[in-house]
Amino acid sequence: MDNNLKTKKVPQATVARLPIYMRCLSEMLGRDCRLVSSDQLAAAAGTNAAQVRKDFSYLGEFGTRGVGYDTEHLTFHIGRFLGLGRERKIAIVGAGNLGSALTNYRGFHEKSFKVVLVFDRDLRKIGKKVGQHTVHNVADLPAVVRKKGGIDIGVITTPAAEAQRAADLLVSANVKGILNFAPTSVEVPPDVQVRQVDLSVELQIMCFHLSDYK
Amino acid sequence: MDNNLKTKKVPQATVARLPIYMRCLSEMLGRDCRLVSSDQLAAAAGTNAAQVRKDFSYLGEFGTRGVGYDTEHLTFHIGRFLGLGRERKIAIVGAGNLGSALTNYRGFHEKSFKVVLVFDRDLRKIGKKVGQHTVHNVADLPAVVRKKGGIDIGVITTPAAEAQRAADLLVSANVKGILNFAPTSVEVPPDVQVRQVDLSVELQIMCFHLSDYK
Repeated sequence: MDNNLKTKKVPQATVARLPIYMRCLSEMLGRDCRLVSSDQLAAAAGTNAAQVRKDFSYLGEFGTRGVGYDTEHLTFHIGRFLGLGRERKIAIVGAGNLGSALTNYRGFHEKSFKVVLVFDRDLRKIGKKVGQHTVHNVADLPAVVRKKGGIDIGVITTPAAEAQRAADLLVSANVKGILNFAPTSVEVPPDVQVRQVDLSVELQIMCFHLSDYK
Repeated sequence: MDNNLKTKKVPQATVARLPIYMRCLSEMLGRDCRLVSSDQLAAAAGTNAAQVRKDFSYLGEFGTRGVGYDTEHLTFHIGRFLGLGRERKIAIVGAGNLGSALTNYRGFHEKSFKVVLVFDRDLRKIGKKVGQHTVHNVADLPAVVRKKGGIDIGVITTPAAEAQRAADLLVSANVKGILNFAPTSVEVPPDVQVRQVDLSVELQIMCFHLSDYK
């Protein structure tokens, strides 16, 4: 890929839309739809055609004017751009309902996200199975992660009060990406990426669409 | 509120950012931060100050040039704009790990989303408790919802193969908003809003930030 593309600043909003396009394209491929226009993709993704074209301009040149995008080709390029080319190893910290749901979530596996470790601090859970994974003691996290050859992304699904400790342990295990589902923010060194996930965001957006202001 | 605001078309991207601003503002209020600049809010929400000001232009006039926004005032107005003013009744369809996690999710309660009903088709789950809710038979959904005086939003957390049936039952119970966590799309009449939630989207965005292209 062109070096200019690598260094061009990509807006966060564009990065956030790319997985949405991926999902729409995947559904289209499932229906054996081989070509898609920016209008069609915009309608499926809930944006407009100009935005679709602007977003893809960051990826390089795609599509033929008046013909549209090759669905498969576009999927491949978005995936590569997002860095989905290789398998990413995931550790789940917090083996409650949410952690268990994510451990068994089919949608991760389809996108090369592989849960390889599950941790909890509850002695009643440690040693038990969640899906096919044995729950490890969170206190052993750095050693267990090291033994596994490192992990790419840590997912925090603990109660709020345990989240910072989970983050600290992940950081000490040299994990550079943390997805935090706990309803509290966590502090990490600047070389670690944290994304806070709030499951109520989608409900709030839904509220807007159900209300009178739209 | 000004009638022009009601009818002005609000971009979906703006609507999607408003809950993020809400979360940032809530954290700021927690730290007793009473005033916030568009720069500060942009940094916290992962966007830029011009976008913040543009987004808020859909809500009306806020903030004082050079002083910033009153945190509490802004929170109130965004919440009102999103239609968060009153309690919304939620039904969860699918009492597995994800359904159970969402039933007990503290973040819903804080935003006036109240889970009032939980359904499953598994006879081993029906009649048992998830949190403080007794699991109902999904086949009885329309009758149970009617008895409860209706619900605002149905949340589908079934396996993919059960999702369309869950959606059909919710539609027949006159539910106008559906949040679908099942990894498949569902078809509903045009007067029903569906939002598809893909839990791997945040992992994909994380991948981008961990990769070389940014």
